[in-house]
Amino acid sequence: MPSVTGRQIQVVSAKGAYLTTDTGARLFDGTASLWYANIGHGREEMAKVAYEQMKTLDSYHVFGRYTNDRAVALAETLVSMAPIDDAKVILNSGGSDSIDVALKLARRYWNQMGRTSKRVVISREHSYHGLHAYGTSVAGLDFNREGYGTDSLVDGTERVDKHSTTAFAEAIQRIGADNIAAYIAEPVMGTGGVHPPQEGYFAEIQRLCHENDILFIADEVITGFGRTGAMFASTRYALQPDIVTFAKGVTSGYAALGGIFVAPRVWRPFFERGAASPVYRHGTTYSGHPVTAALAIKNLDIIEREGLVERAAALERVLAGELAAIASHELVTATRVGGFLGAIELNDEVQAEWVTDQILDLGFITRPLRGNTVQISPPFITTDQEVRDLVNGVRHVLDDIRSGVVRASA
Amino acid sequence: MPSVTGRQIQVVSAKGAYLTTDTGARLFDGTASLWYANIGHGREEMAKVAYEQMKTLDSYHVFGRYTNDRAVALAETLVSMAPIDDAKVILNSGGSDSIDVALKLARRYWNQMGRTSKRVVISREHSYHGLHAYGTSVAGLDFNREGYGTDSLVDGTERVDKHSTTAFAEAIQRIGADNIAAYIAEPVMGTGGVHPPQEGYFAEIQRLCHENDILFIADEVITGFGRTGAMFASTRYALQPDIVTFAKGVTSGYAALGGIFVAPRVWRPFFERGAASPVYRHGTTYSGHPVTAALAIKNLDIIEREGLVERAAALERVLAGELAAIASHELVTATRVGGFLGAIELNDEVQAEWVTDQILDLGFITRPLRGNTVQISPPFITTDQEVRDLVNGVRHVLDDIRSGVVRASA
Repeated sequence: MPSVTGRQIQVVSAKGAYLTTDTGARLFDGTASLWYANIGHGREEMAKVAYEQMKTLDSYHVFGRYTNDRAVALAETLVSMAPIDDAKVILNSGGSDSIDVALKLARRYWNQMGRTSKRVVISREHSYHGLHAYGTSVAGLDFNREGYGTDSLVDGTERVDKHSTTAFAEAIQRIGADNIAAYIAEPVMGTGGVHPPQEGYFAEIQRLCHENDILFIADEVITGFGRTGAMFASTRYALQPDIVTFAKGVTSGYAALGGIFVAPRVWRPFFERGAASPVYRHGTTYSGHPVTAALAIKNLDIIEREGLVERAAALERVLAGELAAIASHELVTATRVGGFLGAIELNDEVQAEWVTDQILDLGFITRPLRGNTVQISPPFITTDQEVRDLVNGVRHVLDDIRSGVVRASA
Repeated sequence: MPSVTGRQIQVVSAKGAYLTTDTGARLFDGTASLWYANIGHGREEMAKVAYEQMKTLDSYHVFGRYTNDRAVALAETLVSMAPIDDAKVILNSGGSDSIDVALKLARRYWNQMGRTSKRVVISREHSYHGLHAYGTSVAGLDFNREGYGTDSLVDGTERVDKHSTTAFAEAIQRIGADNIAAYIAEPVMGTGGVHPPQEGYFAEIQRLCHENDILFIADEVITGFGRTGAMFASTRYALQPDIVTFAKGVTSGYAALGGIFVAPRVWRPFFERGAASPVYRHGTTYSGHPVTAALAIKNLDIIEREGLVERAAALERVLAGELAAIASHELVTATRVGGFLGAIELNDEVQAEWVTDQILDLGFITRPLRGNTVQISPPFITTDQEVRDLVNGVRHVLDDIRSGVVRASA
């Protein structure tokens, strides 16, 4: 908090891809907030759904014998679109929730199978998997994991190079397959700097997981529901995950919702003996919240009706073209794109945080990511021209530095 | 899931203290859902707030420099009513979130103070602190903590008898004060069977915490915002917590919101050097969600306007009278009340789960808790007569068993 005192930007309203602040500034939401405002802000039909559902059934829990019609309808919709055949779904209130339940379930699964030593979770350097206790523990962004007095809050975590399958194979050798519960990865790494998978990476990772009986968890909190131009990145990158986490795009941020898809291999032990099956004891107060569920259903309707997944794919091509053009700028080290999310990595003459502050004056919101990188991931309703304008905004700031109009602060 | 297949109750609408199911049954919400529907269901003014706010600003994050007017207004309101002087507040999306951030912060605090060995968290037997990884780790309900291959997911947890200050003192002796970060307790234990604090318990616990430099965390997820007839149980029971968790009652369930209050002792190290202060890195996507914040503000308005905290205090007296009367029933072992939440503990001739199923046929929702106990915690808008009717419903079921009209299934 003290690090931003006096520099805060207070947002008061939003419509489509634009926000308005308390000082009247109009800003383009070039990051879709935290990679989630996919259908754009302030849609009246979403507000109407919230209003009607809140009057009808504002909330009721889904513990024990209880359920509600909206939770059931959403679960059915989600299962029908899941990147896992015959999946079960667990609903909760956000991405961090999804990571904790996924990793708990991986541990619980192996315990149920009598393989109690399989407990280590392997993640990738620079990965972000939320900030509840288990997500914090597997964080590849060290600054999120550190500061608690142990290597990780939940013991038994390991991080490997984000592109190296050899590093993963070596970790398996070192730790022993009998001690490893799961591998978790974002198909396109987000907060770590937007890193799409390298050719062949996940095919080899999956082969190693299969060979060593390690659950493969795809963290699709950012990529789920269209961000990579497919409904799920698991489809785009031909992944066969045992568990998929999701959140953000499922409601486009209109309400707090997350969840996981679970493959039959993992859910079957908890169902195969009917009422006598062992129980995976987990639940959060707002799992299956009816207003949240109704908003998710409408959000998914809108994505379908307006062809926004296809639109995201088209926008990726525009963004890729723009980023290819700016890649030759002398202050730019690299650009990356993996779906309609991209990044501009800067050299050490200029700081990404400073650049994002400067672009703000031009009316564009971007965000600094790890590795001196600028995040670009607007809503799916963005026009081609807005993508060009945004990247031109970055170019303008970089050109001003080059020409000495402004000085890049350290 | 398989344990309830074919017996599910699908709720489709709710108004005030009553739900309607898909089969047309009208049920009294005798538990306020999961102890949260305090202002009652289906309030149109809440729905209107959601509608207007969603059109105005549906969502924007509060990471880095960003904030929004609703999040700021809610934070100011909450701080003004907090049971801690000069508190800071961290917002998130529910009770489980609040536990994880509270325990992470306790660990982070001691680490920042250079006392890195202070890591153990002590909780009470039969306690419930949510089900994210840290909450699962400190669960005093063993069935929630077990099944993951280690004593607890996050290492360094210990449970002590829920009423014994001697047990706590002995744990400090055994573990060593230099290794203990925090003690966490629900002021009135909820899911563990509704256990109000015994006379003098918390005074002695706090003395021991103070003497041994152990942070005292009050988990007010259930008790916060009026359930004990005071705005916070910390006030009612004269607690001076270093951190208070809250959730449920802050929105009465209309949207997913939780948070923590942090005392100056704990927040000061992260503020005292201005922009150069060390950072406690934590945040969730929907922290400060503007629609959720607007709903919380309206919910707190309603509680104030309708005098619902005072009403909860009055309802506690009615409930206490009814429970005292049923305590002499030969199938009842004990009754307990601590605020407008009460419990009826049954003897082993009858199962609480079976009783709650039977009462449902009379139109009352209750819930089985640990220790063969029936939970009673209706909304604050409940009438005195409805409290009497609910307890009479329990009596009716128990009488039928006694008189042989129905048989208690094992």
